[in-house]
Amino acid sequence: MSQSTKDSSEKWVVSELIYEGKAKKIFSLQGHDDIVLVEFKDSLTAFNALKKGEFENKGKVNREITSLLFGYLTKGHVATHWIEDFGALSVIAKKLKIIPLEVVVRNVLAGSTAKKLGLAEGTPLKKPLVEFYYKDDALADPFLSDDQALMMNAATTEELQLLKTEALKINSLLISLFAKINLDLIDFKVEFGKDSFGKIFLADEITPDCCRLWDKTTSEKMDKDRFRRDLGLIKESYEEVLNRLKKVLI
Amino acid sequence: MSQSTKDSSEKWVVSELIYEGKAKKIFSLQGHDDIVLVEFKDSLTAFNALKKGEFENKGKVNREITSLLFGYLTKGHVATHWIEDFGALSVIAKKLKIIPLEVVVRNVLAGSTAKKLGLAEGTPLKKPLVEFYYKDDALADPFLSDDQALMMNAATTEELQLLKTEALKINSLLISLFAKINLDLIDFKVEFGKDSFGKIFLADEITPDCCRLWDKTTSEKMDKDRFRRDLGLIKESYEEVLNRLKKVLI
Repeated sequence: MSQSTKDSSEKWVVSELIYEGKAKKIFSLQGHDDIVLVEFKDSLTAFNALKKGEFENKGKVNREITSLLFGYLTKGHVATHWIEDFGALSVIAKKLKIIPLEVVVRNVLAGSTAKKLGLAEGTPLKKPLVEFYYKDDALADPFLSDDQALMMNAATTEELQLLKTEALKINSLLISLFAKINLDLIDFKVEFGKDSFGKIFLADEITPDCCRLWDKTTSEKMDKDRFRRDLGLIKESYEEVLNRLKKVLI
Repeated sequence: MSQSTKDSSEKWVVSELIYEGKAKKIFSLQGHDDIVLVEFKDSLTAFNALKKGEFENKGKVNREITSLLFGYLTKGHVATHWIEDFGALSVIAKKLKIIPLEVVVRNVLAGSTAKKLGLAEGTPLKKPLVEFYYKDDALADPFLSDDQALMMNAATTEELQLLKTEALKINSLLISLFAKINLDLIDFKVEFGKDSFGKIFLADEITPDCCRLWDKTTSEKMDKDRFRRDLGLIKESYEEVLNRLKKVLI
């Protein structure tokens, strides 16, 4: 536990659970309206939670990966919700109104888009592709065009453009970082939220749950596809990603 | 048979079948590289041809509806592939390279998009929504964002913009026309193609096969949903649409 985490344990008093998602819980903090505590769970879900699992240490590993990546992105001038770590499993973050869009960036085709377009998994794209999915579990997060996102009032035209610009900036920063630790960033999903002034921040997490990471040498998958596709060594792969990141970021 | 059709029967000599789709056949014409004969079939298909049917007179009715609508749109300064009618079932049209996008315009939600977004069929839209679907039967014509359409090289950024502008112009013209015959234009699908100079024309057809038309008084469906949903009176509804159009366009 770092010095700042020790301090924060005294600073912040957890109030009540305000949201529980598939991989995280959000708590309010006594005396603070504009910040929350985000706790990472050990659970692992796929296919809109039709497949469920967990592994010991997963919450901690994902919290550490997210903190490292959000710290790195902050240095790269990306505005994120992260304020500081809180113990092993949690971070203190800005309280945001989440924009109901999953923003996906693809460098290489894999998963649903490869299947939909009848293209082989592993097909590299000439330039990164940004996609929006509507955050709604009951609808299984449908893919939206920009015009549909506007029709659903998910964001304004200007906000969609900002989400694309930010997502592509994050992509560039992450490609460089992962290249240093011998990983190809195939694709990833991020979420954004707005503070009470309407300013947009990167929210949620960046972990092997929401990235595809392939080892540059072996092409081994180092991400949630190991769980989705029953490839084994899930815990080991997540820990390996964290260990490699620590070598270049700590 | 009109005078111009009689003339054209002598002018054009059919050469060979160059394409057969679900509802039309395309033939080349002797001595002409830049025009084709488009013949309308009696067959009716739905759900990517998983459901098949036909009715007598359907090819003729759809040919007549398309000729009337394309003539009307031409007067409204929409560039179409239609040149002249040829007998009861066919038209002479510009030979185009079809852009592999089905361009859908929605004024009221119905069908796949209503279902995907969990919204009730019949929900009116504040403004018309344009959607692109990738023309590929093997993939069941997947929905594409603009960025995915660009990635698939289906069209350029400028062409996508032109397709949207043209589709919205066609929508405005058709809404006015159908209002005169007591029909609400819920949505429709059109296709476009390019001539050898790269100029874009409205191609294919506009018929109750690819429009949703609801009677303004009774809300009765007057289109292919009668076939998709086994509502009966399919032939009668298509003929009714034609008869109403004839009253205002001939």
